[in-house]
Amino acid sequence: MSAIEQYMRDCMCDSAHDTQHVYRVRNYAMDIAAHERGADLAVLDAACLLHDVGRAEQYADPRVDHAACGAEKARAWLEANGYGQKFAQSVANCILTHRFRSDNPPKSIEAKILFDADKLDVCGAMGIARTLFYKAHVGLPLYTLDEGGAVLDGTADTEDTFFREYRFKLEKLYDRFYTKRGEMLAQSRQRAARDFYEALLREARSAMG
Amino acid sequence: MSAIEQYMRDCMCDSAHDTQHVYRVRNYAMDIAAHERGADLAVLDAACLLHDVGRAEQYADPRVDHAACGAEKARAWLEANGYGQKFAQSVANCILTHRFRSDNPPKSIEAKILFDADKLDVCGAMGIARTLFYKAHVGLPLYTLDEGGAVLDGTADTEDTFFREYRFKLEKLYDRFYTKRGEMLAQSRQRAARDFYEALLREARSAMG
Repeated sequence: MSAIEQYMRDCMCDSAHDTQHVYRVRNYAMDIAAHERGADLAVLDAACLLHDVGRAEQYADPRVDHAACGAEKARAWLEANGYGQKFAQSVANCILTHRFRSDNPPKSIEAKILFDADKLDVCGAMGIARTLFYKAHVGLPLYTLDEGGAVLDGTADTEDTFFREYRFKLEKLYDRFYTKRGEMLAQSRQRAARDFYEALLREARSAMG
Repeated sequence: MSAIEQYMRDCMCDSAHDTQHVYRVRNYAMDIAAHERGADLAVLDAACLLHDVGRAEQYADPRVDHAACGAEKARAWLEANGYGQKFAQSVANCILTHRFRSDNPPKSIEAKILFDADKLDVCGAMGIARTLFYKAHVGLPLYTLDEGGAVLDGTADTEDTFFREYRFKLEKLYDRFYTKRGEMLAQSRQRAARDFYEALLREARSAMG
């Protein structure tokens, strides 16, 4: 295990599946990079491994942006561990822009690939599983009912529910990729997510009907 | 809201989706009862509402069986609140046998219907969502890897994972129903669960491949 990988593992505050998320993102990124020109694979590899090292700080204080915090933690650790300033800054730039933010899009090819690889893990059945899994600890309900007792489908929910998360976030990911390969992989998973949402809504409605 | 329903709500230690589970089970039960002869709907209604009132005790001490504890809590509460002894005992008998146990199967028609209605909520997309949702707090991973780094599909996992739960529990539910209507409803949902498992396994393997 590389020193970067060991540092990543030390920073992951959650259980094994967070580490697995990091490895999936790294593998997606290398797949995408093989279809793109000019990506620096060493920068990309480090950026993938370290992209979520700021999560613990954001869990502790939700006002903290894990992308900004993680970028700075990664830069400082890399410089302190013998990596060059330019390399550390390139990695930090990727991490800084890996969240959804229209005002701070990824610029370098490595940053675009990290963004796409990370988003790919919120697509498809994996995106459904991770959303249900990670959100459970905040007590997010699957759905809420309207005043007449009918199941709301997420479109007009005022409370935070799984259905709302699907309609407002998961469903809208698929055309927001920077690379053609990322978009193609995402779209190949779209149907599994939609099928699950539709089946769950159908079952919930039949149960409450 | 009936006094029984209010007592149920007071006993549910979890957030809103547990109450929704209770209402789904009640609705499934009434659907099944309409296809069966001779079910006492008042007993069935009370049994559905109260079937999980022993959950808090089981959460506090995993050695406690929430079915046995809930049966006794329901019986005592019903008797203390003006319901007859025979009614209270019939409700308690339903609750006592609603878990999977080959040595203690449901006997009355109301007990069989409660069993089926409760199992129906672990079928299909709802079963997937509830399993991911409820198990998240114990830190269950989606999957583990074998020594070569390949994703295990749940069949031979030694650790408790979502894939193992699917292969050993969720997948095996569909032919264990006591009523024809319960079995029919369950089987109409089987494909949604299998499709999700297969998509998630495919995605996980492609990510780690």
